Amino acid sequence: MEGRSEEWFETKEMDIRSMPSSRHASLPYRVGVPPKQNFWTEFSSTVKETFFSDDPLHSFKDQSRSRKFVLGVQAVFPILEWGKRYNLTKFKGDLIAGLTIASLCIPQDIGYSKLANLSPQYGLYSSFVPPLVYALMGSSRDIAIGPVAVVSLLLGTLLQNEIDPIKHPFEYRRLAFTATFFAGITQATLGILRLGFLIDFLSHAAVVGFMGGAAITIALQQLKGFLGIKNFTKKTDIISVMQSIFSSASHGWNWPTIVIAAAFLVFLLVAKYIGKKKKKLFWVPAIAPLVSVVLSTYFVYITHAEKKGVQIVKHIEKGINPPSVSEIYFTGDYLLKGVKIGLVAGIIALTEAVAIGRTFAGMKDYQIDGNKEMVALGAMNIAGSMTSCYVATGSFSRSAVNYMAGCQTAISNIVMSVVVFLTLQFFTPLFEYTPNAILSSIIISAVIGLIDYDAAVLIWKIDKFDFIACMGAFFGVVFASVEIGLLIAVSISFAKLLLQVTRPRTAILGKIPRTNVYRNIQQYPEASKVPGVVIVRVDSAIYFSNSNYIKERILRWLTAEEEQLTAAGLPKIQFLIIEMSPVTDIDTSGIHAVEELLRSLQKRDVELVLANPGPVVMDKVHASNLASLIGEEKIFLTVADAIQTCSPKFAEVV
Amino acid sequence: MEGRSEEWFETKEMDIRSMPSSRHASLPYRVGVPPKQNFWTEFSSTVKETFFSDDPLHSFKDQSRSRKFVLGVQAVFPILEWGKRYNLTKFKGDLIAGLTIASLCIPQDIGYSKLANLSPQYGLYSSFVPPLVYALMGSSRDIAIGPVAVVSLLLGTLLQNEIDPIKHPFEYRRLAFTATFFAGITQATLGILRLGFLIDFLSHAAVVGFMGGAAITIALQQLKGFLGIKNFTKKTDIISVMQSIFSSASHGWNWPTIVIAAAFLVFLLVAKYIGKKKKKLFWVPAIAPLVSVVLSTYFVYITHAEKKGVQIVKHIEKGINPPSVSEIYFTGDYLLKGVKIGLVAGIIALTEAVAIGRTFAGMKDYQIDGNKEMVALGAMNIAGSMTSCYVATGSFSRSAVNYMAGCQTAISNIVMSVVVFLTLQFFTPLFEYTPNAILSSIIISAVIGLIDYDAAVLIWKIDKFDFIACMGAFFGVVFASVEIGLLIAVSISFAKLLLQVTRPRTAILGKIPRTNVYRNIQQYPEASKVPGVVIVRVDSAIYFSNSNYIKERILRWLTAEEEQLTAAGLPKIQFLIIEMSPVTDIDTSGIHAVEELLRSLQKRDVELVLANPGPVVMDKVHASNLASLIGEEKIFLTVADAIQTCSPKFAEVV
Repeated sequence: MEGRSEEWFETKEMDIRSMPSSRHASLPYRVGVPPKQNFWTEFSSTVKETFFSDDPLHSFKDQSRSRKFVLGVQAVFPILEWGKRYNLTKFKGDLIAGLTIASLCIPQDIGYSKLANLSPQYGLYSSFVPPLVYALMGSSRDIAIGPVAVVSLLLGTLLQNEIDPIKHPFEYRRLAFTATFFAGITQATLGILRLGFLIDFLSHAAVVGFMGGAAITIALQQLKGFLGIKNFTKKTDIISVMQSIFSSASHGWNWPTIVIAAAFLVFLLVAKYIGKKKKKLFWVPAIAPLVSVVLSTYFVYITHAEKKGVQIVKHIEKGINPPSVSEIYFTGDYLLKGVKIGLVAGIIALTEAVAIGRTFAGMKDYQIDGNKEMVALGAMNIAGSMTSCYVATGSFSRSAVNYMAGCQTAISNIVMSVVVFLTLQFFTPLFEYTPNAILSSIIISAVIGLIDYDAAVLIWKIDKFDFIACMGAFFGVVFASVEIGLLIAVSISFAKLLLQVTRPRTAILGKIPRTNVYRNIQQYPEASKVPGVVIVRVDSAIYFSNSNYIKERILRWLTAEEEQLTAAGLPKIQFLIIEMSPVTDIDTSGIHAVEELLRSLQKRDVELVLANPGPVVMDKVHASNLASLIGEEKIFLTVADAIQTCSPKFAEVV
Repeated sequence: MEGRSEEWFETKEMDIRSMPSSRHASLPYRVGVPPKQNFWTEFSSTVKETFFSDDPLHSFKDQSRSRKFVLGVQAVFPILEWGKRYNLTKFKGDLIAGLTIASLCIPQDIGYSKLANLSPQYGLYSSFVPPLVYALMGSSRDIAIGPVAVVSLLLGTLLQNEIDPIKHPFEYRRLAFTATFFAGITQATLGILRLGFLIDFLSHAAVVGFMGGAAITIALQQLKGFLGIKNFTKKTDIISVMQSIFSSASHGWNWPTIVIAAAFLVFLLVAKYIGKKKKKLFWVPAIAPLVSVVLSTYFVYITHAEKKGVQIVKHIEKGINPPSVSEIYFTGDYLLKGVKIGLVAGIIALTEAVAIGRTFAGMKDYQIDGNKEMVALGAMNIAGSMTSCYVATGSFSRSAVNYMAGCQTAISNIVMSVVVFLTLQFFTPLFEYTPNAILSSIIISAVIGLIDYDAAVLIWKIDKFDFIACMGAFFGVVFASVEIGLLIAVSISFAKLLLQVTRPRTAILGKIPRTNVYRNIQQYPEASKVPGVVIVRVDSAIYFSNSNYIKERILRWLTAEEEQLTAAGLPKIQFLIIEMSPVTDIDTSGIHAVEELLRSLQKRDVELVLANPGPVVMDKVHASNLASLIGEEKIFLTVADAIQTCSPKFAEVV
């Protein structure tokens, strides 16, 4: 086959050589100039691609008016759509899954509300109302809604920067509801304005680093309960926490607490390990926390260990969520602070929920509309803020349990919600003797799963820059604070995007032997350069941010080539071909840069040739008169075509 | 020729048809996997491309140690290098150019210092020290250094937001020097850290809009002097200014002032027109301002028009720049404010100077190192801040005059500086009777040139998004303030860059008749789709910000194609080929997205095929194990190769 291909090309080149000299008249193919687009068509298509890229109105097309109304209501409340097909088999799955995640969420909720510096019942409240709202409006079938560790920590840190939760518990709680309200508003607004893509700016790598750092920070915070320390730092960085721990080592550690905590932590980790080894035993780690709570509570109750310094939960308010609309700050200084905190917490909560939704939708192969999902999450948090809940979102660990327990629809969230309701109504007094240490152990064993070591290794393998973002976020959270970590993650992510459009790659192309294909000579070392011609490929749109760089980089390639040729005593460069395939767009600065390049080349007696400019570039090259400056006949469909004109002799050589 | 090419391809396709079925074993060409790069090599090459893309140490290579030292000193003080070749012919050119720009700068300086709310001598001071420093350190041969309108206005606006220049002139001046000092520090730091490329983020379009808006604002401000109004608004937006003018129309306008101002404005504009029509008469508009000043001063002196309400300059401090090091705020509240103002003013001043430097260097075809230039400008402003100067930079209008007057080197700046020195020492009392109205006319006629109407039209033609940035900056400056305009310009510019990496273009490709080339069917409507195959080209690196979009967009293309096929009763799609030529990079999120795409396609019984992944992508596809998931044999060098495997029958059709 390879032998044959050589033959073809030889035949082809022979034909070219035997052609009349006026090759320009019979170019193989003209570069297409797309029909001039109306400004509004262009503008509206950009808007559509940006905000409606998923074509959300596709199902509404060609429907009757009443049908459109029904579809519209169903779009807001998907339960009306899938509810019609709901049956007993599905309910069986949902019931088991719902009971499992309920047993997991109750101890977690009590622990997480401590991270947010709130009383234990607020965690339970947040597992009652939000899951109900989500079940009506959400479209993920596998997500488990409720308070989560990272958002609780973030909210707690941001809130205590403003108000001391111990000195002013009432104002603190009001600000928490305010932040929750605006977190919901932020989420719903992003969804309604179809700006959901903004959360994509938090890169996967940054999220991995941030979550890992947050897990470490949360685990460190739990050492307070785990070791029974009373005076603990309020800072979350590892250095302050370690100082706090070691300074209290001689007198502040409570040994009975440590024994209980360590014993149950071992139990929880063993349960986790069993669940990991045998997928069928997923329920072991799922119910282990509740079992620990029951056992340890009973143990403290009979031994009265609380008199030996083992701290206990003491009191959880009985009864379901009291209304809290009137507690939200709608005026005053705290309004703005609530908005800011809500914005940050809302976006982080979104990131987590959307990632979960996408992951499980991918596994079961159904579609999730990110923007609709955000509206559902926003509505749920707005409703939550009015019923004494703090920011709820999808929990990684509980969603995984939900999935493995065989949930079918969001009904499993309703089941969980009912169990939490019963707990709030009847069982809260039972938690009186629950030791705080057990909650710490439960949280530690839960957050360990957030440290995704494998993902970090994969990131290192694939993309070093991503790894820097990941580590920046991780160390930022661990050594400074969650906000700083977040800021580092976002900044590095943005820097990466901007670097791409500031310093795009360029490559010298050569002809691949026995083909008509020109490729990067770094990737294909066997590709041969064409004598007298430099072929440069520019790997990015040419925009103001890179136009000067690209111009100078191309001239630098040319200078380097010329120096080599002069050193070797070879003839000088006559043509510079720019392969424009990857140049998807060019703006005014880009056009100017190409003009300047053209002038510099003319002074050096080098002709500029373009190969394969795309539709947008062709349009602008014509609009700006650059086409006539370069010469229409010097714009080719492919590099091969350009070479046939610039260096017909090269064909004979190969 | 076209007939023949058909023949070739038929022969070629015949060969393929007659080939054994095990085509995979004899692929035309394997996609190259670049050799694995060491992390540090990769990292250092990225750093080099980012910060040292212009290879500034090229001339230092292979030099002796003492030679390197000499080159190093020459790099900081280019005058040592070009000074050796300086001769009388060059000096003749510089002398004439220097005298011309001096005559232009003296009246402008006095006017511009008013824009900065400073006494007239500070403008002159800023045309004495900075040009001298620049002449030693700068590498542009054509730039004319001194105060400029836009920076003066910007500085004046920002400073008076902090301190009232009339009530607290001393503190105001101190803050001005502080801002100048930190403007210099900013400029020098950007240069030393080789972050000069950051100013490229102010797009050409945004600068055009900003300059135009600033010109209008400055011209409007001049109506105070032009109409002889005493109580004038401090705001710079057009609405406040217009209200201020019309409310004082009945009693506040001074008619003798208006007559003088209008008469000389006409004179200046006529001079400008003459200069534009006949390039040889460039000196007419250049000396017209000084002539106006002399004539109008003499006129006021003999008629004593100042007694009829014509405001005059009154007093300009005699003598050269007093030292001002001790006046710079190095502590206290004003330090931070000075840093902020200096940062903004410094960057705007840089943008102007670098644009001028590049323009004239391009015209005379010499190289300018942007980063070295920034160090020179920074050093000049630091020196200036210690000698009672405010922020100086390159002036568009004076640089153009300098160029046309035949300047050869930066010596013309020294000549100008000497003239300003003589003026400060001996001639300032002569300006006592100079009417303010004349200065207003001079400024109006100078800033009119900043409104680049043609550039705006060109921007509209080439790129609508750029035009929005341009107009945003323009109207922001005119209707709000210079800061708001600047903020709008920068935000829109960034939004554009981010949009590109968030919503990249994708295109469906088809085979161009009688070739082996596959191109966008929108650009080439005659290109034909391959039955059973969808070929999608992705026009951007696949990063976290767009990976989800790209995945969903490709699936949407597929769905749309399948719907069409089903409607037409044609066989379904079997292969999805992604043309990866423009995909210059992929990160972890991108790899995940491709994996998810692969899974979705497998569920639809569609095979994923990649064409022409670049070196970086191949590297990562291998590092992440994606290569084996897709199958090495489904990665091709070109779309044509892929089609030969996927749809060999298609060859017969064409």
